[in-house]
Amino acid sequence: MALHNLTGFLPIFEWLPNYQRAALPGDIMAGVIVTIVLIPQAMAYAMLAGLPPQLGLYSCVLPIILYSALGSSRVLAIGPVGLMSLMTAEILAEMNPASRAEMILIGTTLALLAGIVLLTMRLVRFGAILNFLSHPVISGFTSASAILIAFSQLKHLLGLDMPRGLNLFEIIAFVARNSTLINWMAAIIGVVSILIILWLRGPLNHLLARLRLPAPLVNSIGKTGPLCVVVLSILITRQFALDQQSALAIVGAIPKGLPTLAMPPVDWPFWKELLPGALLIAVIGFLESVSVGKALASRKRQKIDANQELLGLGAANLGAAFSGGYPVAGGFGRSMVNFSSGANTPLASLITAGLMALSLMFLTPFLYYLPRTTLAAIIIVAVAGLIDFKTLRHTWNYDKADATSLIATFIAVLTAGLEPGIAFGAALSIALYLHRSSEPHMAIVGRVDDTEHFRNVERHPVTTYPHILALRIDENLYFANTNYLEDKIMNLVVDNKDVDHVVLVCSSISFIDSSALESLEMIIERLRNAGVTLHFAEIKGPVMDHLGKTDFLSRLGDGKVFLSTHEAIEYLHKKSKEHGQKTAP
Amino acid sequence: MALHNLTGFLPIFEWLPNYQRAALPGDIMAGVIVTIVLIPQAMAYAMLAGLPPQLGLYSCVLPIILYSALGSSRVLAIGPVGLMSLMTAEILAEMNPASRAEMILIGTTLALLAGIVLLTMRLVRFGAILNFLSHPVISGFTSASAILIAFSQLKHLLGLDMPRGLNLFEIIAFVARNSTLINWMAAIIGVVSILIILWLRGPLNHLLARLRLPAPLVNSIGKTGPLCVVVLSILITRQFALDQQSALAIVGAIPKGLPTLAMPPVDWPFWKELLPGALLIAVIGFLESVSVGKALASRKRQKIDANQELLGLGAANLGAAFSGGYPVAGGFGRSMVNFSSGANTPLASLITAGLMALSLMFLTPFLYYLPRTTLAAIIIVAVAGLIDFKTLRHTWNYDKADATSLIATFIAVLTAGLEPGIAFGAALSIALYLHRSSEPHMAIVGRVDDTEHFRNVERHPVTTYPHILALRIDENLYFANTNYLEDKIMNLVVDNKDVDHVVLVCSSISFIDSSALESLEMIIERLRNAGVTLHFAEIKGPVMDHLGKTDFLSRLGDGKVFLSTHEAIEYLHKKSKEHGQKTAP
Repeated sequence: MALHNLTGFLPIFEWLPNYQRAALPGDIMAGVIVTIVLIPQAMAYAMLAGLPPQLGLYSCVLPIILYSALGSSRVLAIGPVGLMSLMTAEILAEMNPASRAEMILIGTTLALLAGIVLLTMRLVRFGAILNFLSHPVISGFTSASAILIAFSQLKHLLGLDMPRGLNLFEIIAFVARNSTLINWMAAIIGVVSILIILWLRGPLNHLLARLRLPAPLVNSIGKTGPLCVVVLSILITRQFALDQQSALAIVGAIPKGLPTLAMPPVDWPFWKELLPGALLIAVIGFLESVSVGKALASRKRQKIDANQELLGLGAANLGAAFSGGYPVAGGFGRSMVNFSSGANTPLASLITAGLMALSLMFLTPFLYYLPRTTLAAIIIVAVAGLIDFKTLRHTWNYDKADATSLIATFIAVLTAGLEPGIAFGAALSIALYLHRSSEPHMAIVGRVDDTEHFRNVERHPVTTYPHILALRIDENLYFANTNYLEDKIMNLVVDNKDVDHVVLVCSSISFIDSSALESLEMIIERLRNAGVTLHFAEIKGPVMDHLGKTDFLSRLGDGKVFLSTHEAIEYLHKKSKEHGQKTAP
Repeated sequence: MALHNLTGFLPIFEWLPNYQRAALPGDIMAGVIVTIVLIPQAMAYAMLAGLPPQLGLYSCVLPIILYSALGSSRVLAIGPVGLMSLMTAEILAEMNPASRAEMILIGTTLALLAGIVLLTMRLVRFGAILNFLSHPVISGFTSASAILIAFSQLKHLLGLDMPRGLNLFEIIAFVARNSTLINWMAAIIGVVSILIILWLRGPLNHLLARLRLPAPLVNSIGKTGPLCVVVLSILITRQFALDQQSALAIVGAIPKGLPTLAMPPVDWPFWKELLPGALLIAVIGFLESVSVGKALASRKRQKIDANQELLGLGAANLGAAFSGGYPVAGGFGRSMVNFSSGANTPLASLITAGLMALSLMFLTPFLYYLPRTTLAAIIIVAVAGLIDFKTLRHTWNYDKADATSLIATFIAVLTAGLEPGIAFGAALSIALYLHRSSEPHMAIVGRVDDTEHFRNVERHPVTTYPHILALRIDENLYFANTNYLEDKIMNLVVDNKDVDHVVLVCSSISFIDSSALESLEMIIERLRNAGVTLHFAEIKGPVMDHLGKTDFLSRLGDGKVFLSTHEAIEYLHKKSKEHGQKTAP
């Protein structure tokens, strides 16, 4: 029983004791290939964040181990990711650290705070925050971020000494103004690296596939582009001493060995300054990880639990903080590599973590001569795939309001930065949604032939009575549509002077909030002042229970609640005939 | 034709040419009574705003005339109102004007900007902004504002020399600390004034009603409280020279005569500073006017057009700006007085405007000795009725989330001020709504007996098939509920390993946004990877038209769109039987 409870919190107790030997070859293969992808990627993203390369590598040992034990995805590949690195870069530019030590401290503290935020979100079960970001907003945000990331790498790709924290237009202006200062050796190595990676991924891959080599091998070769350009550019740089001869910027000395474990110091004012950034990093990291995790889990009919993910990711970020890393999440590309290389269980990730540890112990001296332009090339290729105009085209065809959110978010992120951009986009998409639902579909209904069915008078030949107006409302009633409801009903009554009875058909209403309740009370009152009685028909059970808590039903006065529209019309028609006979004999 | 078009913009061309003589006595009576109410009220609100009293009076001539010509309500009584005066006071405290002239300039410029904002909202038909404020948020905002207004008057009521711009707690602390400085003469006159007004409105009114005096007369007497205390306190103050003897603060000299017409100077940086405040003033004024206007119009089966109201109110505020006034709106209490005194047409308001102009020309010298504490008493009585705990109790019983919005807005306004308070409240109520609609009701449905009806399996005894899962979704699909939709469907498939076909019953869906469309595509893909086919049934016509614009239907693969759930289940059941016979003979 105790173990069973623990399994809920520690998925490792579920998969490790039941480990099948048949899963081992796939796990080993995936573990090795992900490591090959991860070494250059981790260093590249650390450079993008504006941090020393070892922080990227440190982020790939303890965080991976912790996620393997706590996360609910079996194949998510944890480590530094592009978006969070860009956010870290923005925060670093704002904080403008005075020393290298302070810079590193900002990185680890961000991971710590992101971890705390994620675990707090777990405690209050706040995974629902994801529901506030619409897909068009995320798409606009991702495309714009990818462009920002790519342009931020121009300084490394072209060997320019650009200040931190420039926006897109300032970067373009700087490059244009300083084109004479471009380090052509850096530019050539960078561009050639891009071409090699693209060639391995594209034309070579197609060629090998046509040669009928086994598909997993072909795929794996396609992913080795980054590793190849790393090895090639290191060899060339060392051979020709390009760092001396051509002033080529290189990675330089990376501390050898595993990171020392230590908690970043508690410093409230400093934490308070970093918190807003950490919050966005946590939310975006969570969003990316859950999307990737869900997509991959469904292929094997496995589940992803958003709250369990908060726990796994939170722990991974605390791990990054304690072992000298910076914020981590589950990367899209890497996780796909892990999955398609045959990973069956989180053991693949544990193998990756082990190999990363070994690399830190023995491999770092070989990375000394790695040109920074090569890392820039790797980043640019990685993010180019995130620029997504297809979604814009689809969205534009399907829904102009959603397309507006997408474009607005895209422009806002490019011009105002990541945080204001996504906040603006989210607010706009919510406003457009509220606006859309503020004019719900309503239909005057009438009886179809001699049946008990009532349909829209505009679409069907139906029978109505001049004294009775039956109105079906096709949406839940809440504050955004109460004004429309009031106006619609009052206008109908003003335009149909004969009407004595209005019947609201509530078959599609599963929720009435207190604003709408107040509006209904006001409508009853106003109709009464105008000599009209309001009735209700087909109120759903839960809605009726809810209304029963108030004195709403007693406010109806002469109005009644009918089970069906049929019953309502029958009763009211009969009553008005009787009334007519009495008053006009 | 030309006249007909003009009538749309200028309602005066509709009511004036068709004026019925029978309407005249009511209009005259109402015009006189509203003037009696308006003179002390306009001065009191100007004092609340921190402006000289004549600004209040100036706001009751040209604005009323313009609204009579352009507004869509026939009985709305335009002039200074409490909330907008409080906002003006907050803005004045922030701007901290150096001179009396600058203070007046801020008042007129706010009216000008509010007018421009309202007319701009008219141009872009932005009356829909009202839909973003839920009733609980408005209730919390109004109650808290009323408390702020009442406390802001303590300095006049107690004759204390309090600095501008204190918040609620600072006011309380100031009064407690300076209780020895209270001017007891002011306090006595103020408290007695409050008691007289309440007595006239309450006990005396009941008494007169019991004496069977005509109801309109009784009502009118009840409203004269403010005028009575004004006259009484002027007489007493002048008689005993209380301004000299007891250092009683009085209104003092009010310029005699009508205001001069002039446009406030164009000054961009100054305008930019005032714009956020003017925006909120415009929105709140619009909100108040439309609510009051609608409530009164419905009693006579008349219409209020929100966009026409923007035009009328915008013109009224421009009128205030050009004639030395400050922001105006349709006040609740005053409009009720106008209506209940028998106003039939805007002619009543034109009579009020004429009488106000006469008062400005001849009456101002008599107001010299009016004690400020009397005006404070009038304000306190007027706003006390706005503090509304009844709505809180009702809302709490009906819906805890709405009650939370109300309380949060109330506290935020009291502690952080009007603008941040209402912004926080509105954001919270929207977030709570999105959260609520993020988990729509869904039901697995099965066949009822041998009919073609399908009902919730949890509530009815129905027939289902292990290979087919029919799920009815009772809400529109949009970004806030896509995560829930994905999880729900994938979890159902994971938990029911036998299922080969999922049928989504869309009878309650009248709208699918692009986030939800993408989610559906992802669900189709994921189900396919898991060996399950997704089908749709009962998609509404407009939704189907919308989906037809995309390649969604071609992505269904083996999935089909059925007209009815019955048809879907029949087809799939038959097909799976055939399939079973083929593969397992």
